Amino acid sequence: MFNKILIIGCGLIGSSILRAVIDKKISKKIYILEKSKKNISKIKKINSNLNFLNKVDKNVSGINFVILCTPMSEYEKIILKLNNFLSPHTLLTDVGSTKKNLLKLKNKKLNKKLNWIMSHPISGSEVSGPEYGNKNLFKKKWCIIIEDKNKKALLKISKFWKKIGSKIVFMQSDEHDKIFSMTSHLPHLIAYNLIKTAQDFQKKNKKNIIKFSAGGLRDFSRTAASNEIMWRDVFFSNKSNMIKVIEMFTKNLNGLKKNIKFSEDKKLIKILKNSKKVRKQIIELKQDVSKPDFGRKNI
Amino acid sequence: MFNKILIIGCGLIGSSILRAVIDKKISKKIYILEKSKKNISKIKKINSNLNFLNKVDKNVSGINFVILCTPMSEYEKIILKLNNFLSPHTLLTDVGSTKKNLLKLKNKKLNKKLNWIMSHPISGSEVSGPEYGNKNLFKKKWCIIIEDKNKKALLKISKFWKKIGSKIVFMQSDEHDKIFSMTSHLPHLIAYNLIKTAQDFQKKNKKNIIKFSAGGLRDFSRTAASNEIMWRDVFFSNKSNMIKVIEMFTKNLNGLKKNIKFSEDKKLIKILKNSKKVRKQIIELKQDVSKPDFGRKNI
Repeated sequence: MFNKILIIGCGLIGSSILRAVIDKKISKKIYILEKSKKNISKIKKINSNLNFLNKVDKNVSGINFVILCTPMSEYEKIILKLNNFLSPHTLLTDVGSTKKNLLKLKNKKLNKKLNWIMSHPISGSEVSGPEYGNKNLFKKKWCIIIEDKNKKALLKISKFWKKIGSKIVFMQSDEHDKIFSMTSHLPHLIAYNLIKTAQDFQKKNKKNIIKFSAGGLRDFSRTAASNEIMWRDVFFSNKSNMIKVIEMFTKNLNGLKKNIKFSEDKKLIKILKNSKKVRKQIIELKQDVSKPDFGRKNI
Repeated sequence: MFNKILIIGCGLIGSSILRAVIDKKISKKIYILEKSKKNISKIKKINSNLNFLNKVDKNVSGINFVILCTPMSEYEKIILKLNNFLSPHTLLTDVGSTKKNLLKLKNKKLNKKLNWIMSHPISGSEVSGPEYGNKNLFKKKWCIIIEDKNKKALLKISKFWKKIGSKIVFMQSDEHDKIFSMTSHLPHLIAYNLIKTAQDFQKKNKKNIIKFSAGGLRDFSRTAASNEIMWRDVFFSNKSNMIKVIEMFTKNLNGLKKNIKFSEDKKLIKILKNSKKVRKQIIELKQDVSKPDFGRKNI
């Protein structure tokens, strides 16, 4: 599919793309730009035939396809360097979790001759680092591609993601950021907040409560173990949508508090019952495993 | 261990106890009191040697051990009936998720000659009904037993739970209700609230967002698919603790909102980073599987 691919930032997502690219024989040569020496030695174990770059320089001019997989807060710095060396024939994409901020970056900072089509594969995990990468991470998962007037480039990007197993949806950047503020960014923020509250509770009451976390807390702790740099970037980049969904959430929580305080039986039961429908839909849409308890075995 | 055991209410928890009792040969005869005909036919498939009772009557007088496994809102009605027929030699326990309310019920309504020692096995699932029961549901899980002056009965109850695999902790009822308001009840309420918010968002924006739930929402939807009667009972029974933890949670969420709004980088990073410690502890304490993503396979 390509002669030369360059992956910039090779953690969980970058190394999963790397593994999939090797598996599907998508590129003759694979280039990696990764700052962490510790990560580089882990990546070398994946495949001995990789080419490591130290920085963005003239070596990137012949690359056909570049994928940005660093935290979003590093994109600007990288884009400014790519401006000097990338060829107009190179296709550039990214895997960032918010898009309006990146569209702004593209419009303001990217050399007008270069082609950046934005992608967001909906896959990830609470673990970070190339050792956790998985060639099947994108298999049967949605990948959102942001609409662009360069239809040829859109088609090429779609082909790439499909090749490594993704299902494609096209969206505008503002629609993307709105939807994922609710399905991804708010759930992560809420999980972080619940764990913070449990930590405060533990400190205040001087009790070891974590040992009893199997009652529900443990599920949230997984989500709240996600990479803090990535999520800081997401929350800051999607500020206005975040504030809106936090306010919706808080309003509903106040409602539930009132239902509990005044023993409003019917109102409470209706809400608790209704949420089952979402689980059913999620399983039908193959967004989660159907087995109770995520198929988690006794520990 | 016993000649005759009676399980009252045979859904997920009752039928898991039933399966464990059969597996460990804990009782010569097993009696079941279950209202739902649909459930009865499912329970008959577990074992053909069970004795079904229609109601609490003179037949319960010879039972050695009774376990209440109905929703807590049915306990009072059952206790009033047991008062008329149960023998002072019978040991009574329950599996309710809150305890101060049950202690009150015991003090106010239980015949003084009868022995009720309270238990709370920390195990469950989002699914309901006897078909989902599992003899290993309690294995290596905590079972909280509420302190009582009847030490002989405490010992007997402990032996029972240990026999089916539980690890025992003794607590006072108020300590129990406080701890579990944070580790279990609040996480469930928050999951319900997040799903309710996602449903409102979907309605307001006329978008199918559920199909993109793999970004985080799906984990919450599992918890929020739990039985609504059970959880209504829990929330109402633990009202004052619930209100306190909701207020702690809301205060922290307002803090995070402020961190996001004003791009308070260091404060936000500190919170997001700190929560990793809890995940680490949970895994060390064997409260969850250590595999990323709960060991969930690609769907």
